Amino acid sequence: MLTYDKYLATVNRAIERLALPDSPAGLYDPIRYTLSAGGKRIRPVLTLAACDAFDRDPMTSIHQAVAIEMFHNFTLLHDDVMDKADMRRGLPTVHRKWNEETAILSGDAMLTTATMLLSIHAESRLATALDLFNGTAMKIYEGQQLDMDFEKRLDVTVAEYMEMIRFKTSVLLGCACAMGALMADVNIEMQQRFFEYGENLGLAFQLQDDFLDTFGNPDTFGKAIGGDILNDKKTWLLITALGEDKTGTVKSLLGPTDNPAEKIEAVMKVYRDLNLPERIHELIDRHIADAIEALDKMQLRDEAREFFVELALKSATRDK
Amino acid sequence: MLTYDKYLATVNRAIERLALPDSPAGLYDPIRYTLSAGGKRIRPVLTLAACDAFDRDPMTSIHQAVAIEMFHNFTLLHDDVMDKADMRRGLPTVHRKWNEETAILSGDAMLTTATMLLSIHAESRLATALDLFNGTAMKIYEGQQLDMDFEKRLDVTVAEYMEMIRFKTSVLLGCACAMGALMADVNIEMQQRFFEYGENLGLAFQLQDDFLDTFGNPDTFGKAIGGDILNDKKTWLLITALGEDKTGTVKSLLGPTDNPAEKIEAVMKVYRDLNLPERIHELIDRHIADAIEALDKMQLRDEAREFFVELALKSATRDK
Repeated sequence: MLTYDKYLATVNRAIERLALPDSPAGLYDPIRYTLSAGGKRIRPVLTLAACDAFDRDPMTSIHQAVAIEMFHNFTLLHDDVMDKADMRRGLPTVHRKWNEETAILSGDAMLTTATMLLSIHAESRLATALDLFNGTAMKIYEGQQLDMDFEKRLDVTVAEYMEMIRFKTSVLLGCACAMGALMADVNIEMQQRFFEYGENLGLAFQLQDDFLDTFGNPDTFGKAIGGDILNDKKTWLLITALGEDKTGTVKSLLGPTDNPAEKIEAVMKVYRDLNLPERIHELIDRHIADAIEALDKMQLRDEAREFFVELALKSATRDK
Repeated sequence: MLTYDKYLATVNRAIERLALPDSPAGLYDPIRYTLSAGGKRIRPVLTLAACDAFDRDPMTSIHQAVAIEMFHNFTLLHDDVMDKADMRRGLPTVHRKWNEETAILSGDAMLTTATMLLSIHAESRLATALDLFNGTAMKIYEGQQLDMDFEKRLDVTVAEYMEMIRFKTSVLLGCACAMGALMADVNIEMQQRFFEYGENLGLAFQLQDDFLDTFGNPDTFGKAIGGDILNDKKTWLLITALGEDKTGTVKSLLGPTDNPAEKIEAVMKVYRDLNLPERIHELIDRHIADAIEALDKMQLRDEAREFFVELALKSATRDK
């Protein structure tokens, strides 16, 4: 096994070497721009490492790893249009830097390019790889749709929220892991175990995201604390509070405010009164435990198990 | 061989039977809505008929035929968002009936669904089918990008225009034909000949579209004549006229007008003075001849050749 940074360097090298055409520039420049913005690239790293965990050269799965990163970036591109977001990874979003037509069309081209990459050297695994990839993609669209539906509802349950983040975020991490296992030619049960690992990692990751946006340390978090509260974003914290807060305080605080600091403080007080910081961490810990349980069912060799356990524990304790 | 209407009925039955999920409705209802609007469905008919032409049960290629129709409808959906179109096939466009987010996301789901359909029963042909389909898709995006780029230019050449319509429109007809041949397990040369047939059919079809919008019979055409002229749409007619009209009349007529009938009449006069109605038909006839030449290289049985020759001749003489 290699380090996270070594896998990451391999992914970045492969992305730099992608032979995208130069022309028409209006179609391909936004793709290059999106991919060059970087990010943690956790999904392709999971693919390479999962392949490596079964003693197969991680490069066996490099095209599939890049395919999944390409797909992920496509979803961000189209999500940014739908959310009318201005910035992504410290840069203007594609629809701001160019325009909406460009963002839609370049995104479409990224989705097709992802499918093309997925097919390279897939050989006898092609049909399974496609089923895994396309089935995951459909769940992600369903998750995005649920997320948009939830914005208009005040009665979203915690169970609905968990299903939404599982679809929108977690299944792609599951798919990334399973894809690496598939490319290592291990059986379907192993692929499913690795999918479960990735899915639980994704759930823990998203819940930690919810936690950090409200309770993170402003010095390490990198952006202002309380953004989700100000936007009334339906996070696990808000949904749980809306369901349990008998005083109606949280509900009364929804909507625009003249005093952002006061709104954040008031909502945080309810969250604290309901013990939500501790409870969300119990939930995160449960998903980390589930992820590790899935790992243990695979009986990986020690250094492979260690790599994935460490990644899971880090995602639960990260502060940015 | 069956009649066009018989193939069409088969396609429509398969589309009705597609097992799309009910929920989330915001994702799947727009897909059902788009598919139910019908249309000529020439692409999936070409796929079934091409398969049938080699004495293979056309149902062998039904999933691939529907995949191509699904893909085509996805491009219309996203193009309508990009063009801010209000109506499609007599119905409000998806982004008008729902909203833009819905149109983008449902379109994405249609593209992935198309790839899923393409894989069904493709078996040993899967890798080739995917290469054909994805390569065609990339050309279509490039064509759409060129079309948008041309809007901002006055110096587009006829050669550039022909390349644009080949990418944006014709390659998908070529792909539809080649896909049917591939599913009939004929060799790559036959697939390529059928691709050429479809591509030339598509070019003839698009040029006839350009002709009809200006010189069609208002009684049979179904929509107002002169729309392209009023919108300064870069058709073969306008591009050729801009290049050849030494008087500068056409260029001076570009832009908004207070008197639409006068603008249409004045531009038509230039087109007639340059002999464009006859010349566009010579060009259409050349592509029909090329389509038939590609057919003849395949040495199809008589009734199959007849089906495709008739389809080509009809597309050159259609009045709506």
